[in-house]
Amino acid sequence: MSQHDTAGALDRADELAAFRARFTLPEGVIYLDGNSLGALPRDTPARLARAVEQEWGRDLIRSWNLAGWMDMPTRVGDKIGRLIGAQPGEVVVADSTSINLFKALSAALRLNPGRSAILSEPENFPTDLYIAQGLIGQLGDGHRLVLREPEALLDAIDEDTAVVALTHVNYKSGRLHDMAALTARAHARGALVLWDLSHTAGAIPVDLTAIGADLAVGCGYKFLNGGPGAPAFIMVARRHQERFSQPLSGWLGHAQPFAFTPEYVPAPGIARYLCGTPSVLGMIALEVAVDLMLEVPPAALRAKSLALTDLFIREVEARCGGHGLRLNTPRAHAERGSQVSFSHPEGYAIMQALIAQGVVGDFRAPDIIRFGFAPLYLRYADVVEAAVRLARVLDERLWDTPAYRARKTVT
Amino acid sequence: MSQHDTAGALDRADELAAFRARFTLPEGVIYLDGNSLGALPRDTPARLARAVEQEWGRDLIRSWNLAGWMDMPTRVGDKIGRLIGAQPGEVVVADSTSINLFKALSAALRLNPGRSAILSEPENFPTDLYIAQGLIGQLGDGHRLVLREPEALLDAIDEDTAVVALTHVNYKSGRLHDMAALTARAHARGALVLWDLSHTAGAIPVDLTAIGADLAVGCGYKFLNGGPGAPAFIMVARRHQERFSQPLSGWLGHAQPFAFTPEYVPAPGIARYLCGTPSVLGMIALEVAVDLMLEVPPAALRAKSLALTDLFIREVEARCGGHGLRLNTPRAHAERGSQVSFSHPEGYAIMQALIAQGVVGDFRAPDIIRFGFAPLYLRYADVVEAAVRLARVLDERLWDTPAYRARKTVT
Repeated sequence: MSQHDTAGALDRADELAAFRARFTLPEGVIYLDGNSLGALPRDTPARLARAVEQEWGRDLIRSWNLAGWMDMPTRVGDKIGRLIGAQPGEVVVADSTSINLFKALSAALRLNPGRSAILSEPENFPTDLYIAQGLIGQLGDGHRLVLREPEALLDAIDEDTAVVALTHVNYKSGRLHDMAALTARAHARGALVLWDLSHTAGAIPVDLTAIGADLAVGCGYKFLNGGPGAPAFIMVARRHQERFSQPLSGWLGHAQPFAFTPEYVPAPGIARYLCGTPSVLGMIALEVAVDLMLEVPPAALRAKSLALTDLFIREVEARCGGHGLRLNTPRAHAERGSQVSFSHPEGYAIMQALIAQGVVGDFRAPDIIRFGFAPLYLRYADVVEAAVRLARVLDERLWDTPAYRARKTVT
Repeated sequence: MSQHDTAGALDRADELAAFRARFTLPEGVIYLDGNSLGALPRDTPARLARAVEQEWGRDLIRSWNLAGWMDMPTRVGDKIGRLIGAQPGEVVVADSTSINLFKALSAALRLNPGRSAILSEPENFPTDLYIAQGLIGQLGDGHRLVLREPEALLDAIDEDTAVVALTHVNYKSGRLHDMAALTARAHARGALVLWDLSHTAGAIPVDLTAIGADLAVGCGYKFLNGGPGAPAFIMVARRHQERFSQPLSGWLGHAQPFAFTPEYVPAPGIARYLCGTPSVLGMIALEVAVDLMLEVPPAALRAKSLALTDLFIREVEARCGGHGLRLNTPRAHAERGSQVSFSHPEGYAIMQALIAQGVVGDFRAPDIIRFGFAPLYLRYADVVEAAVRLARVLDERLWDTPAYRARKTVT
């Protein structure tokens, strides 16, 4: 049990330890899937109840002004901006990540005319690739999606690259792209860069201003803990904002939404990246979570994330040797996000058995078991215990039952 | 006070009277803005609290399956379909009305190639026109937006009309388009029709199947009472569904979202009109409200809506003569939605004064005071009392104060 003792000491010394009490966590579960759906902040239910019963139920339509609903997309956007190093007025909360990818890619292709390629990687998160395909198919003007392996990306940026579109953290392996290097190379070759920060915001501090970022999008319901289907965000660098009006030109992005004029006139600044009426309940839950995240010292967040993932890798390798797990996640800190994944031919069954043991991670086809580490609500002791239970699943072949091996076709 | 007595008798005979108790309504307010933001169903707070605390907080990621989150877009879509006469599998809940307009217009232009015009009217709801402009600008291939006054629309449909895109209920006047006649004429001339049902669903029963509708969209937060920024819906007739794959091709519209393959393959049927991860909290609130609406006999809903608006017109004309109010809303039942509006040069100030008297309607530029009548939670007595208070505002010139006349620039 010495590893448990060590973990206990780490937890006692953890400067972020107090944040765990700010979340409502299920009994008896070690939750390592906060990179897919973040946990519930303790303040969220009361805030949402107030929004529903008072702002909606009692004040009704007046709450657009009285309760500040109208300002939420830019207000919460600015708060998220502080987590990713954007400037005030560069981020809005709106729609979903996929929709925001469409806006950002549309912008990039128009801001960089005469170039045909959207450069990405085959393992970019699928929706990023699907949206690029949808946009290209719709434009039908010779744009193309070019996919290169991560190692080849720097050299693949050329004079035909309109935009490099990548997700900072690979959703399977947890591998990080070097945002600064790729952005610098892209700019040197006249390309723009679109960063998907869905697995970044709330886990890995980044500085979009320092790297000279052009465009970014990200997700509200993963490490930001904004709740299931939380609204997403989009960042457009100020220098690009008024050079383009995005095609999802709904009334909330109009310069004067309540003038109800028949001609679309884009709002100044980032507000033109709004489209329809925002999801008020979703934004309220997201704001609670973002406010909580803003209390966290960024360096401590990153340090604990790396310490948790270091510990998990070490514990799994020490306890599960000989069972054929293959680490997918880089060991180098500079290359690792806030997750750890392993490949195993029986990955699906192993994850089912592990969930039955109270450790919730997830499975990603074809053979990956994936564990996300949310520094705000995980303890070092949880990490050791998760490895202990994974070792039990493997040592006792708990995964080897027809129920777990009969992989459901998830549709 | 005989009109109050008459109203009381109407309320006692009202077969929908019991539905009022199914809503939480503010004390001392007559709420005539349910066409902008519907009232709070009494069951919604507890259902949302359970979703937040148990489904999100306790069951976390497993709720996508356990709590049925994954099926909500099609499940709630089918329920809305019953309100608008669509068939099962023809409606999904997704995104905002504006985003769904973009999908539907994209579909229409591709389904009807070789025709350049989107035909609409100058007073279509602005976001409908803005989205058409955004799409046309993005395609850059000669499509154009043609605007004709309502009376001229039937004759304006010609062999260059790709799609007729109209909102069933005019948001200012409450005037209805004849959906059946316009759809029939469009089809006779080879055009498709896109109906925006934002002010229809939950107030006016329509039968999309009977009229042979092609495409429709609508809003969840008006007469459907789904809550602020509720998700919207889109209907695509089954015969068109698999002839087109819409450009907002996010992962939830993929045939196998969890296969995570790099190539987009559209889902069969209406699910291809999904894009990103749906707003779970918003859909849960919407489903409560739609379930409530499904309890209402459609004919009774429409009959009460017309009776309420008849009564309001009659009462206002009887009590407010000589003050220069001009009725914008058609008197003929077949031409009237579930709202009444009047023009007055001091409309803005009048509405401010009326709100101060506890009657909440809204103002629409340049001079319109607008009153929505939600049959589920309004009483005939409310209608008479609203007219009494409007008469007081006019008789006593309560609007004529600098505070109300200093019209704020709403941005």
